Amino acid sequence: MAAPTEFLTYIDSKADAFIQRLADAVAIQSVSGDAKRRGEVVRMAHWLDGQLKALGVETKLVDLGKHVMDGVELDLPPAILGSIGNDPKKKTVLIYGHFDVQPANKSDGWDTEPFELVIKENGQLVGRGSSDDKGPILGWLNVLEYHRDNQKPLPVNIKFCFEGMEESGSEGLDELVEKESKAGGYFEGVDCVCISDNYWLNDRTPVLTYGLRGLTYFKVTVSGPGRDLHSGVFGRTVHEPMTDLIHLMGRLVDQQGNILVPGVDEMVPPADDEEKAIYEALDYSISDVESAAGGQISLTSNKVDLLMGRMRNPSLSLHGIEGAFSEPGAKTVIPAKVSGKFSIRLVPPQTPEAVNPLVIEYLKSEFAKLNTKNRLEIEGLHGGKPWVADHKHWNFEAAKRATRSVYKQEPDLTREGGSIPVTLTFAESLGVNVLLLPMGRGDDGAHSTNEKLDRSNFIEGSKLLGSYLYELAAISK
Amino acid sequence: MAAPTEFLTYIDSKADAFIQRLADAVAIQSVSGDAKRRGEVVRMAHWLDGQLKALGVETKLVDLGKHVMDGVELDLPPAILGSIGNDPKKKTVLIYGHFDVQPANKSDGWDTEPFELVIKENGQLVGRGSSDDKGPILGWLNVLEYHRDNQKPLPVNIKFCFEGMEESGSEGLDELVEKESKAGGYFEGVDCVCISDNYWLNDRTPVLTYGLRGLTYFKVTVSGPGRDLHSGVFGRTVHEPMTDLIHLMGRLVDQQGNILVPGVDEMVPPADDEEKAIYEALDYSISDVESAAGGQISLTSNKVDLLMGRMRNPSLSLHGIEGAFSEPGAKTVIPAKVSGKFSIRLVPPQTPEAVNPLVIEYLKSEFAKLNTKNRLEIEGLHGGKPWVADHKHWNFEAAKRATRSVYKQEPDLTREGGSIPVTLTFAESLGVNVLLLPMGRGDDGAHSTNEKLDRSNFIEGSKLLGSYLYELAAISK
Repeated sequence: MAAPTEFLTYIDSKADAFIQRLADAVAIQSVSGDAKRRGEVVRMAHWLDGQLKALGVETKLVDLGKHVMDGVELDLPPAILGSIGNDPKKKTVLIYGHFDVQPANKSDGWDTEPFELVIKENGQLVGRGSSDDKGPILGWLNVLEYHRDNQKPLPVNIKFCFEGMEESGSEGLDELVEKESKAGGYFEGVDCVCISDNYWLNDRTPVLTYGLRGLTYFKVTVSGPGRDLHSGVFGRTVHEPMTDLIHLMGRLVDQQGNILVPGVDEMVPPADDEEKAIYEALDYSISDVESAAGGQISLTSNKVDLLMGRMRNPSLSLHGIEGAFSEPGAKTVIPAKVSGKFSIRLVPPQTPEAVNPLVIEYLKSEFAKLNTKNRLEIEGLHGGKPWVADHKHWNFEAAKRATRSVYKQEPDLTREGGSIPVTLTFAESLGVNVLLLPMGRGDDGAHSTNEKLDRSNFIEGSKLLGSYLYELAAISK
Repeated sequence: MAAPTEFLTYIDSKADAFIQRLADAVAIQSVSGDAKRRGEVVRMAHWLDGQLKALGVETKLVDLGKHVMDGVELDLPPAILGSIGNDPKKKTVLIYGHFDVQPANKSDGWDTEPFELVIKENGQLVGRGSSDDKGPILGWLNVLEYHRDNQKPLPVNIKFCFEGMEESGSEGLDELVEKESKAGGYFEGVDCVCISDNYWLNDRTPVLTYGLRGLTYFKVTVSGPGRDLHSGVFGRTVHEPMTDLIHLMGRLVDQQGNILVPGVDEMVPPADDEEKAIYEALDYSISDVESAAGGQISLTSNKVDLLMGRMRNPSLSLHGIEGAFSEPGAKTVIPAKVSGKFSIRLVPPQTPEAVNPLVIEYLKSEFAKLNTKNRLEIEGLHGGKPWVADHKHWNFEAAKRATRSVYKQEPDLTREGGSIPVTLTFAESLGVNVLLLPMGRGDDGAHSTNEKLDRSNFIEGSKLLGSYLYELAAISK
């Protein structure tokens, strides 16, 4: 059962108002990883709660307690639970999204202010969170608004679960989902889950995603001097923490992307020919990767190897160093305490529990080889298991039908390189199928400078989300 | 001829006022390496010019033109030239100092606001620039103030040369010194030079310094992606600039402080037994080094090797990375463009001209081995040659007598690890002896957090500077 034509024309007619609402959401600097902006994440929760209530959703804000970040105890932003519709004859879908965003400063290299949504002539809506994940959340609001304005009943019952800590490890959410998934909990009766928080592979073919990589994030600190030292006075006199840390970080991954921690790459079985054929069939090329990356820097010219590198193999990225000189100009300092940040993307059967001991043991053993008098400290900052779902389930079938209906295209079936740890929590806690139904394109630049969502993806994507609900209502379990 | 007792008691009696003046100087955030604070360096020049004028010095501010820093063209802060006394029967000493300071933010780990001078109960005067180099400059002002207040003629003629770019390569000063050193120039008739801009080896024995290491500072940039990338989407798909840079930086220096750039360490002839005996005799121990560093992290337990590492051998320090994630917390970014900062301290016969081509060739050749599609760019940010003087010259003899008179101690004769490139410019342009006569202690933390000058060093040091002028007047050329 396709969505009513009236719904599709309604979405088109309200496009400008929907984009203004997105601008309002982007303007709230809800950076969960920045202690100074924690209040903005809370403000974003209240803004979204107000929107949901106005659209007829019964909501409640759930206090998730406190956590410690960078040595400071902070209140976690509340999660939002919502419910609309309670018809036992209808299916019930649980929708998840997150209203926090990655850090962004104009000085990082943004062309415009990151928290002011800019509508470019080419239709791009540029701003932090436009694509990850405020645009998709607002897509659901757009769908609700049609039904409220036209006094139409929704074709399914909907439960909402929105959080404000996704970019910082989804602190506190697992416990909430597990609790509310039990008998008598808020999520009782949920038949399937839909999450819109990832991307198409390219800029032309819609995607349904059935796998995600996991993550384990490390902070490795080397310290020794009592304070920062003058390199003239102390150079070649003391063990310098930066020298040790750089040597250690240089032993984690090679130039071909191979992870040098023994046992980590080896955990993953090689792909057989049948699996390789899936990657061969995807509408994605080396030049698509390089276009999205903005440089001719692909690790290999073999398409299957390249896509498997992203989707079904683990990866290790070095993100930066805290405590060293990081500003422009020349400072002749020997930093007293430096912390390297790196993370490993995990794929089945890897888990943080299985991988972390290997990493920690390797770091300790390589550090011992350095024969330095400095000290090593290793912290796991956050992590999540990888996930793979059944892409032949009726939940996916409904999304395929909706995609054909709105985009007149067959969606690519993908596994994704990023992490949404709560996906696995929903799958395991509820025991139902979880679908990832992305709104944005592969070049949106989530987590990057100049993040954008194309206007067409926002508007057609809102139609897709609504159509998915109608297809879901019609399909046989 | 020792300084008059009246001078010594005057300095003691005015101590509190002198410390207040130091607080006024520290409060001006004259960070030369920060484009946003350039105006504060200029303000510091005018403040110092006003002080000098009030003490009877004829001054002029010299426009040093413009320079480019981090891609922005900036006016250089003016240099201050000053002159007091013009008696042909007296010797003429040229005094140099710098009124700019290193960057400092409380968030770097300072216990107190860096630009508010704090007088601690143990007598430490804590604040950026207290020791490097505002304290010593103000020591000279203290000497002048005695002579003005008591209408006493100075025992020598004095020329002053104060600059505001020492921490950023002394841009523009070489040209000025060379020009004013010629016949008819401002420095005509100068018999010797005194610079107070370094430190004692320890916290108990005064020092005269006859050698300095030079410096060459590099910024090595690796770039590839068009913008920062999400490590989930692009991990194990593209060549990551951080991976390349970390590997490159890891090939510059080993854990024992050996410089891995071929030919650099090898340029310096080994010390013979006579030279080693000088280091053996110094009042300095492994535990002094470790106390100043604030950690038991010395590279060797051999005192002579340790002191030669600091004074007569080159060193390579890794300072940090610009463009990578450097804040607290966890950000899963692949930075698009990262710049490693490192510098090499040089000793005779090394020069930047001789060393830089070796470094550049080595970096290019090691980068080529990485077999990456990313791009490499190498910039030399600034540099200066090393310097060694004759420590048996009458200029040094006068300082030895002054030290015995004020401190009742024989000074250690040292070579220093830091760089004051203008030292060499004065020596070469004027063809006269240059003396380094430090005021502060080895644990002052110049360029570091919680920089301090001990009250006793400020007050006794002011007496030392004045006494030096009287000894200078009396000694035979």
